[in-house]
Order: sequence, then C-alpha cells, then structure tokens
Amino acid sequence: MKLYDLDVSGNCYKVRLLCSLLSVPVDLVPVDFMGGAHKRSPVIDLNAFGQVPVLEDGGLILRDSQAILVYVARKWGAETWLPTDAESMAQIMQWLMVAENEIPRGPGDARLHDKFKMQLDIAVAREKAARILALMNAHLEQRQWLVLDRPTIADIACMPYVALGWEGGVPLDPYPAVAAWVGRIKALPRFIPMPGL
Amino acid sequence: MKLYDLDVSGNCYKVRLLCSLLSVPVDLVPVDFMGGAHKRSPVIDLNAFGQVPVLEDGGLILRDSQAILVYVARKWGAETWLPTDAESMAQIMQWLMVAENEIPRGPGDARLHDKFKMQLDIAVAREKAARILALMNAHLEQRQWLVLDRPTIADIACMPYVALGWEGGVPLDPYPAVAAWVGRIKALPRFIPMPGL
Repeated sequence: MKLYDLDVSGNCYKVRLLCSLLSVPVDLVPVDFMGGAHKRSPVIDLNAFGQVPVLEDGGLILRDSQAILVYVARKWGAETWLPTDAESMAQIMQWLMVAENEIPRGPGDARLHDKFKMQLDIAVAREKAARILALMNAHLEQRQWLVLDRPTIADIACMPYVALGWEGGVPLDPYPAVAAWVGRIKALPRFIPMPGL
Repeated sequence: MKLYDLDVSGNCYKVRLLCSLLSVPVDLVPVDFMGGAHKRSPVIDLNAFGQVPVLEDGGLILRDSQAILVYVARKWGAETWLPTDAESMAQIMQWLMVAENEIPRGPGDARLHDKFKMQLDIAVAREKAARILALMNAHLEQRQWLVLDRPTIADIACMPYVALGWEGGVPLDPYPAVAAWVGRIKALPRFIPMPGL
C-alpha cells in the first residue's frame, strides 16, 4: 500500500496515524507540494482533483482522506474502527462529514491563512472555527470519544486540524473538553505525531 | 421514521428520494426555514448545528444528509445502495465527500446566492462549480453511474445540487455526460422530483 504524502498535511497525517494505530504497513511517497508536484504527473494522473493524500493499493486508487480512512478501517480494522451496523456507521459518518466540511472551513482555513499565507477571509474562518469547536466541546463534555465508547475513525478524521488550530490563531484553551479528547488520542498505543502537533 | 424537512432543500430531497427509491415510509415534518424554525426548539434541540434535514428513528437522531443516506441504505438497502466491502464502500465515500464539499461550495453556493440572495462570492462559487462539473463530466463520460455498475447513494448524494445548478446560473449544457447521468437517475423506478428539478 502506497501513500502519496505531505508531512505538514493533516489530511495525509490522519491516514498515517490510522495505519500506525492498526499496525498496517504503508510506503510513503513524499509529494513536493510547495513545488506543485500534485498538479503534475504522476500525482495528477492518479487524482484529477490535484490533492494529497492519494492511496494506491494494487490496482485501486483512492483520493480524499476520509474515504481512505474508511478503506483502511474496513480492510484491516474489522468492526472496531468503523462498525457496519446502520446506527454506528451513520453516527461515525456525521463526524466524517464534519471533518470534510466544518473543520477545514474553520480551524483548517485559519491555519492555511496564517501558516501557509493562503488568501482567504480569516475573520470568517475564525468565526467558523469558534462555532464548530464550541459544538465539539459541548459534545465531548458528555463523553470520551466522538461516537461509541471507543476511538473510531470519527476521532481520527476530526482531530488533526482541530489540534493544529493554534497554528492559525485558534488555540484550544477555551475548549477544555476538546483538548482532553486530543490528549486521549495522543495516549493511544502506537500514536505517532506530525509537525505542529 | 420522521424527517424534519424543507421542500426546496436539495439535502432534504436526497433523503426523500432514497426513501422513495427503497419504498421506505417516512413521515415528513416541514420546518419553517425562512421563519428560522431550524434555529429554535424543537429542531435546534435535535440538531445543535441548526440545519435540516434531521432524521428521527426511535431514539436515534441523525443530522447531515450524507450520514442519513448511509443510515437508510444500511438499514433498508442491503448491500445494493451501499456495499460494505472495503473497496466499494471507499469509492462511494469519495463521492459522498464531494457531495459534502465541492458540490455545495460550487453549484450549491451559486444557487444560494441567486435564488436565496445569500451574501457570498458568486465568482468563486461559479469557478468552483465549473471545476467540479468538468471533473464529473470526464468521469461520467466513461461510465453510467459514479461508482460500480449501478446506482448507489453516491449518485443520490451528488445529483440534487448539480441538477439544481441552473437556479444559480450553472446550467448543465456544457456537461452532457453529467446531464445524461441526471437523466438516468430521473428514470429510476419510484423517482420523485423536487421544486426546480
């Protein structure tokens, strides 16, 4: 299994992290993102969206970090990280969608602006960050993990850009339940870090 | 099963559509969105995100249209609409993520601007619409459905805001393979329409 990877990408990191937690070997292929390698062959031929991560497993090519987490969890995680009963799966999906939508538009965009000098409305990003982090904090005041009574890919999908928010001026101090949840993920056996986290 | 619903919402519609295709009965509870009912009790108590659709099934409450599609497909669709093998499921997830990200930020936002007078950068929305529709058109030139050889929830999730794009100045004329795919969905047994589609 081959992962086209970027070390400072939270989306690539979440795939590396799940593979590590599951002890699944994966060959990393570093992509020179700053040099635009994701917009050229061979990456663009694998993913017309021009983004990393991209996963290659035999003839299968997958884009989108959340979809890749689903693949890894279904192939190597049995029912532990992504159960297939309707209720558990749908509850996990709710949070994969937050990882695809509210989190990148909030703390993710704030980091892109501050750390990578991307042009975007930082006030809107900070406002969205405050909104989703307050919702997550209220949710996590009641429980240890986002869904069920154990870590699932919901936690792995949502954590990176939340924990990296300080690089975009969105620290977790006002959200102690979120900070404690990040701490629980960091304490999992075979946890691996990434730059900034 | 109860769906808190808005007739002009493509996200609510995709849930109504899947229920109809699967002959699953669902009680619709119209939400006075223009009157702000989604920001007040009882809807806000069911969904802190303050959005529709919300699905209630016994004690289970679900938000996010993509997550609700997963629930309905897993509970009543057997392996047909959302297979559980790693590869098929991950390929469907790729497109559920497009339905959560690129499509709302493109044709979805363009429609919000033109039809519902929402303040947003219409030039950016049109540019993103052109980008995702070109990608989908190239993909659909090679196949009948987004994933596998049959309709799945990938198609149901992605179709509504693509087909409604004309309400935001994003018609499908430049994307004939996308238009043909919308036509194939409309031809499915038990298809139901929505306003504008």
